[in-house]
Amino acid sequence: MQDFMNQFQVDDPFFNRYLSLVKDVVIPYQEKVLKDEINVSEKSRAINNFELAAEKLTTGECSQEYYGMVFQDSDVAKWIEAVAYSLNAFPDKELETRCDTIIDLIGRAQWEDGYLNTYFTVKEPERRWTNLEEAHELYCAGHMMEAAVAYSEVTGKRKLLNIMCKMADHIYQHFIIDRAEGYPGHPEVELALIRMYEATSNENYKTLAMNFIDKRGADPGYYEKEKLRDDWAVRGVRNPPNLEYLLANEPVRDQKKAIGHAVRAVYLYSGMADVARHSNDATLKDACKTLWSSIVNQRMYVTGSIGSAYEGEAFTKDYHLPNDTAYSETCAAVGLIYLARRMLELWPSSEYADVMERALYNGVLPGMSLDGTKFFYVNPLEVTPGISGEAVTHKHALPERPNWFACACCPPNVARLIPSIGRYAWGQKRNTVYTHLFVGGTLDLTSSLRGKITLHSSLPYEGRVDYHFKPEEKTMSVNMAIRKPYWSEKMAVTLNNQKVDYQLEQGYAYISGAFSEEDVLAIIFDMDIRTVFANTKISSDSQKMVVQRGPLIYCAEGVDNDDDVLSLTIKKDGSKSVSWSGLLGGMAMIQCDGVRKELALDLYSFEGPEEKDTQINYIPYFMWANRGLNEMRVWIPYV
Amino acid sequence: MQDFMNQFQVDDPFFNRYLSLVKDVVIPYQEKVLKDEINVSEKSRAINNFELAAEKLTTGECSQEYYGMVFQDSDVAKWIEAVAYSLNAFPDKELETRCDTIIDLIGRAQWEDGYLNTYFTVKEPERRWTNLEEAHELYCAGHMMEAAVAYSEVTGKRKLLNIMCKMADHIYQHFIIDRAEGYPGHPEVELALIRMYEATSNENYKTLAMNFIDKRGADPGYYEKEKLRDDWAVRGVRNPPNLEYLLANEPVRDQKKAIGHAVRAVYLYSGMADVARHSNDATLKDACKTLWSSIVNQRMYVTGSIGSAYEGEAFTKDYHLPNDTAYSETCAAVGLIYLARRMLELWPSSEYADVMERALYNGVLPGMSLDGTKFFYVNPLEVTPGISGEAVTHKHALPERPNWFACACCPPNVARLIPSIGRYAWGQKRNTVYTHLFVGGTLDLTSSLRGKITLHSSLPYEGRVDYHFKPEEKTMSVNMAIRKPYWSEKMAVTLNNQKVDYQLEQGYAYISGAFSEEDVLAIIFDMDIRTVFANTKISSDSQKMVVQRGPLIYCAEGVDNDDDVLSLTIKKDGSKSVSWSGLLGGMAMIQCDGVRKELALDLYSFEGPEEKDTQINYIPYFMWANRGLNEMRVWIPYV
Repeated sequence: MQDFMNQFQVDDPFFNRYLSLVKDVVIPYQEKVLKDEINVSEKSRAINNFELAAEKLTTGECSQEYYGMVFQDSDVAKWIEAVAYSLNAFPDKELETRCDTIIDLIGRAQWEDGYLNTYFTVKEPERRWTNLEEAHELYCAGHMMEAAVAYSEVTGKRKLLNIMCKMADHIYQHFIIDRAEGYPGHPEVELALIRMYEATSNENYKTLAMNFIDKRGADPGYYEKEKLRDDWAVRGVRNPPNLEYLLANEPVRDQKKAIGHAVRAVYLYSGMADVARHSNDATLKDACKTLWSSIVNQRMYVTGSIGSAYEGEAFTKDYHLPNDTAYSETCAAVGLIYLARRMLELWPSSEYADVMERALYNGVLPGMSLDGTKFFYVNPLEVTPGISGEAVTHKHALPERPNWFACACCPPNVARLIPSIGRYAWGQKRNTVYTHLFVGGTLDLTSSLRGKITLHSSLPYEGRVDYHFKPEEKTMSVNMAIRKPYWSEKMAVTLNNQKVDYQLEQGYAYISGAFSEEDVLAIIFDMDIRTVFANTKISSDSQKMVVQRGPLIYCAEGVDNDDDVLSLTIKKDGSKSVSWSGLLGGMAMIQCDGVRKELALDLYSFEGPEEKDTQINYIPYFMWANRGLNEMRVWIPYV
Repeated sequence: MQDFMNQFQVDDPFFNRYLSLVKDVVIPYQEKVLKDEINVSEKSRAINNFELAAEKLTTGECSQEYYGMVFQDSDVAKWIEAVAYSLNAFPDKELETRCDTIIDLIGRAQWEDGYLNTYFTVKEPERRWTNLEEAHELYCAGHMMEAAVAYSEVTGKRKLLNIMCKMADHIYQHFIIDRAEGYPGHPEVELALIRMYEATSNENYKTLAMNFIDKRGADPGYYEKEKLRDDWAVRGVRNPPNLEYLLANEPVRDQKKAIGHAVRAVYLYSGMADVARHSNDATLKDACKTLWSSIVNQRMYVTGSIGSAYEGEAFTKDYHLPNDTAYSETCAAVGLIYLARRMLELWPSSEYADVMERALYNGVLPGMSLDGTKFFYVNPLEVTPGISGEAVTHKHALPERPNWFACACCPPNVARLIPSIGRYAWGQKRNTVYTHLFVGGTLDLTSSLRGKITLHSSLPYEGRVDYHFKPEEKTMSVNMAIRKPYWSEKMAVTLNNQKVDYQLEQGYAYISGAFSEEDVLAIIFDMDIRTVFANTKISSDSQKMVVQRGPLIYCAEGVDNDDDVLSLTIKKDGSKSVSWSGLLGGMAMIQCDGVRKELALDLYSFEGPEEKDTQINYIPYFMWANRGLNEMRVWIPYV
């Protein structure tokens, strides 16, 4: 996979703010959290765990106990990965030095034989690889491999990569040479091993990834077996394995529905797509397509988020997409973006990029407050104060973002996605350059196409993007493959203000040319306010609609609507207008004609509610919950 | 409380069928289940447990282990109570003899000191009264007291009553004389003790009931204390007490919201109302009113069922009334009827009888299949095959009735309610005779008003009821207090076809007269099809409405609507008509103009759904799920 993460310098009015936020707020904030230098709602101790592991390996003793989740190491890994991507955009020697120090510490926490995991090192050194179901060893290893590749690509420093090669070699020894049974309870290492393979060309890492994927579900009794061998639990009592939750009920090629823990699912499918690409395995490609279709055609929220139930953080059943009790984990939307990007490598079709864009703006960005200090793990599409976060069925669906979590997977996942946005925005196959997402900045194609391409983007609020070219010589020959987004009916293309006719292939406009420095290739999208309707099998969305403009899904919050969203009804054919608002740092606000239907006195009444024409004020969904506790709805009934 | 259960002989076209069903099907069926004489989905062993307890008390040994829930005894108690009421309507010597045999067995399972409970006798004889939180001893005792009073009233046989007096005396000794701390985890015994007090005039029983109510929540730490003394669990591990669930977080007089386990709540409030009536305790009366209002004004389904969450089978938060994941336990609707009837004794206002009627037709009757062999524990207001009963969030909301439950509280609760309907239909204070529910039959007032009153009722499908009088002498002077139901705007009263003007007092029409055998007092209700709207704070019912006619809430099932209810929208001002249908044994079917809005291809679409005018076919909600698996909706979106 051609990876533009470090060949692309973001310069985009919308995303610049996010990149700066990640650099200035999120990364320093998370660093303090990981080092326990600030008081947040949940302690981390993740760095401390590495220190304890290093101490144990040096002295044989530990001065303190391990603290946190069994996968606490992965928080550090994801932070390092985020740092790497951020350093690519904003070189920062001090940060790099601090990160090097942590990498040195990680090195000291590694066993002679390559093994690396602070939970086992500190707490259960005799039990390595005995509880693949729960213990997240391969998951933590995978995240650290991703961090290692990223850090080496950006900084050129190979220390962490060497550490993780040693760990990967150890895993290869254990699972391939020593033929240990089993596969990870939480998939992740598969896609990470392919990153390692791409970075090092070591075929063993590809072999390992393929092995985990091929074994998965082929012996669905594996977890039961390991439990019988040693019935220890990471926490409390170990229940019989839930094979659907673990995506291990049948071989991956036989799985037809997206089931189980949503994050595990999309991480697994991403690894499958990676392996399928490198092995050109048709049955695995088909499996990816089937599972992709199961997600996006039956089990995905309009925001691109996935996971309908708190129980198991999981997919449930086709068309079961409750708005108020949604799980919709931020990490799962991140994982869906990973999967979509990998599907694009297999088939350059806009259906994948459309979902990637949907999930980015509407599934991932809402996971973080606009000031970068608070995070949503769960992203409901409807919130009612007094019920959300309070009713026993809604404990998970918080109406406001907390500042940290005991299970802190989501914040660093957002932090590592945003500065690596180039990877998702662009693609290349020989002389074809794909624009999957319209993120402004400069793409350095010197090594392949002998030039640079700069994109100026006014999205998501305005509908024009311009391409400028900087050939090393007079012109550069490029086949530009530009996605026509699903939300733009009438996308127009001009070259130097002359309309260019284009043919669509799988949703991409292909425009070939030898472009010079004077050329401006412009794409003009229609930014009409669109109304979105749901499949009538989705019970929660009956007779409701969503307002969308460009890639942004909108919502109505109480604070803009007289503190009462539940009694609002939108007029399907009423007037809808957009205006720039200075609120929330600036955004395109939408006003729609609506009717307020109020029945407040009785619980039930034979009299219909009082009706009064009103305006509904909509804001982009990713901006919700930045102004205190209040009602919010994405799907609003229409008349 | 004047109890008309055994002074009233039902003769009612609608309820006759139910009474016969209880006699011919439900009671024999449940008898076989309790005796394990038929194969159902869950074993009972309830009678066997009594045999084991008797064996243990005789020989000191048990040939088998105790089986079932800790409250398995209560299934037998409720069955005996149902038998008593049924014998009142249909004398049956053989059934009575079989019941006497069971009562003899119960007597043999009683300890010398009066204690009676098979779980403790067989399994934990040393641990009596040590786990009030979980162990349901007082709950089982309460149910058996209710059975004992009913059986003695109907048959004149006092054996079971004597057994339960001995048990009540034992409880009095333990909690009052020996001053044991604590109060029942599952309230029930309070209302049962008042029944015992009313039947025996033994003041100790009233004292006990008052004591349990006054102690409740006054020492919220009690359950923690008993757990500390002996941390044993009825099943698995004993969690820290959940005081909200147990309704023990504060003294009952301070409780402002209906919280916790819904059945426990309404049983407790019923006991509180009973005690308040006998003690004329103003603060307790106020507490009843506050809690009643919390239920019916914020936390009750339109069907009169209660309990919004599976977790804790509990009330949740104001206006949280999800239709598809409702708990709405049949027992809770039964309990709400108990409470409503007791509120009527405190304040003869139609608001209580209206709820009683709502819960009877729409909350309790759906709990049983039309053939009397299958039962719902949970009564959702919306069902989607493939999701209901299957998604992890919907496991409890079964789309079809099973034939029994491991926790079999609901079937016998229906069986004991139906044949005692007279108790709920009628009331009397001196010469005022209240009609709370319009159930046909003959009321024997010989002892008080020297005559009988017969009601002919055509409800719930037709809107006329006639009163006929049979005075012992020429006339009988009665002050008839006839409820004007909330669903009849224009209730008319005629005496011998002459219109009678009436004044309403608290929703009752008071018509005084000296009635002779020739007089016909007729009430004519308007039976218009009504549309019901929900308070706009109820998110699940936004822009939806319900169809109601008379006391019956209607629903649409797939089988009558081309197997697709989710895409149906009702026209608010469209035509609505009713016609008699032979389906399901005969009922008034309703047709409404609607629009089918179908969007079946995509998950989300910018194109609105295809719209096609259609007719929506509605059936009474209590009849749903009698024709196989299919979609069902009570609340349907309107345009």
